[in-house]
Amino acid sequence: MSEHTLVLLRHGESVWNEKNLFTGWVDVDLTEKGRGEAVRGGEQLRDAGLLPDVVHTSVLRRAITTANLALDACDRHWVPVHRSWCLNERHYGALQGLDKAATREKYGEDQFMQWRRSFDVPPPPIESGSEYDQTGDPRYAGVDVPATECLADVIPRMMPYWENELQADLAEGRTVLVTAHGNSLRALVKHLDGIGDDEIAGLNIPTGMPLVYRLGEDFLPTGPGEYLDPDAAAEAAAAVANQGR
Amino acid sequence: MSEHTLVLLRHGESVWNEKNLFTGWVDVDLTEKGRGEAVRGGEQLRDAGLLPDVVHTSVLRRAITTANLALDACDRHWVPVHRSWCLNERHYGALQGLDKAATREKYGEDQFMQWRRSFDVPPPPIESGSEYDQTGDPRYAGVDVPATECLADVIPRMMPYWENELQADLAEGRTVLVTAHGNSLRALVKHLDGIGDDEIAGLNIPTGMPLVYRLGEDFLPTGPGEYLDPDAAAEAAAAVANQGR
Repeated sequence: MSEHTLVLLRHGESVWNEKNLFTGWVDVDLTEKGRGEAVRGGEQLRDAGLLPDVVHTSVLRRAITTANLALDACDRHWVPVHRSWCLNERHYGALQGLDKAATREKYGEDQFMQWRRSFDVPPPPIESGSEYDQTGDPRYAGVDVPATECLADVIPRMMPYWENELQADLAEGRTVLVTAHGNSLRALVKHLDGIGDDEIAGLNIPTGMPLVYRLGEDFLPTGPGEYLDPDAAAEAAAAVANQGR
Repeated sequence: MSEHTLVLLRHGESVWNEKNLFTGWVDVDLTEKGRGEAVRGGEQLRDAGLLPDVVHTSVLRRAITTANLALDACDRHWVPVHRSWCLNERHYGALQGLDKAATREKYGEDQFMQWRRSFDVPPPPIESGSEYDQTGDPRYAGVDVPATECLADVIPRMMPYWENELQADLAEGRTVLVTAHGNSLRALVKHLDGIGDDEIAGLNIPTGMPLVYRLGEDFLPTGPGEYLDPDAAAEAAAAVANQGR
């Protein structure tokens, strides 16, 4: 029997999703399409009666704005808010700001896919002082800002947040909404669904579509995570998989 | 010498400000003009270098959306967020949803101004179960929802929040943004500026204009509160004073 309800929501389409650039920790805004996705995500929650009691977001604008719009759409704009860099997208190192298709062409399919989807191969580190270096940004005061991250590097920041912050809210009986990013959510889904290091490359999470997990007392899923609009989610996930083609 | 910086921001124009209806706890949205005011308020903070480290809002949409838009405009969308019903507009009782001009005509200038601006005369209580009764709204779980409030009734909920929550953030050296309402902010300004019960009727706070206080160690102002755009604020305050005419 399920005890807890967890809703994961990847931010809507961002300006750099649209331009097909690697984004990582660069703080780009949503597109108009992305804002619409966020509103529709909130409407889906409303229509399903899945009303968040609390929201957790990254400290990046595209996730924050998605949460604001989705919560407003389901009349839950007033719930408590928590933000943490632990929910940030993985840092894309020196690839931040580069065109995905051009990167694929320059480095070849294998290298490109290793950087994008492998478990433990990080992109080259960002150069200190480069345009997209976040060192010195006040929102990361006290944080050891990474110069690059692979998915394996996201797990040691995501999992303590899951165990200490998100599980604490779930244990209080709250429906928890996590509005975050493709790779921070992949790190969590990898744990929840018990996906192996070599299988995780195949997991793509579409933008703006609530993914609902029912969890047992042990905070593990009692069944598969479910998109509220499964057909649209499958189509969108395929589009994510094909980025850079 | 000032130790602390406090920024008060009344929400931008709401749909019911525009229609000239008494609003109180009814959870109406901003107008497009109100959204623009919120963005400009944030731009004024950015241009003045007054960057909030934390935001406190009421649990009403018009204040929450104003905070979201203003913080986004000054690149502070990522700061910690606190919400409390203690920052809500005063409850307008049975007047909620009524047209201000029609109310003035029906009850006369004296009664109208007493309800709007007197310190201790509350409007008639809202009828239980009426359209705009907030009893049972999940955001007020555990709150003894009032049936009407005068300004004197707002003080016993606003002042503990000021002393326990806002001063705690100020004491940590944070620039604190409070995004709230005409009458919850009037309750705080009454205290800060030492305005007497009989003088408070003359204080009007315009929508969407940051009001900045520099405070000493004792959390009292070291000088008058200042609007970042004083001319526009004076003009807008006069318009608030004349509502219902």
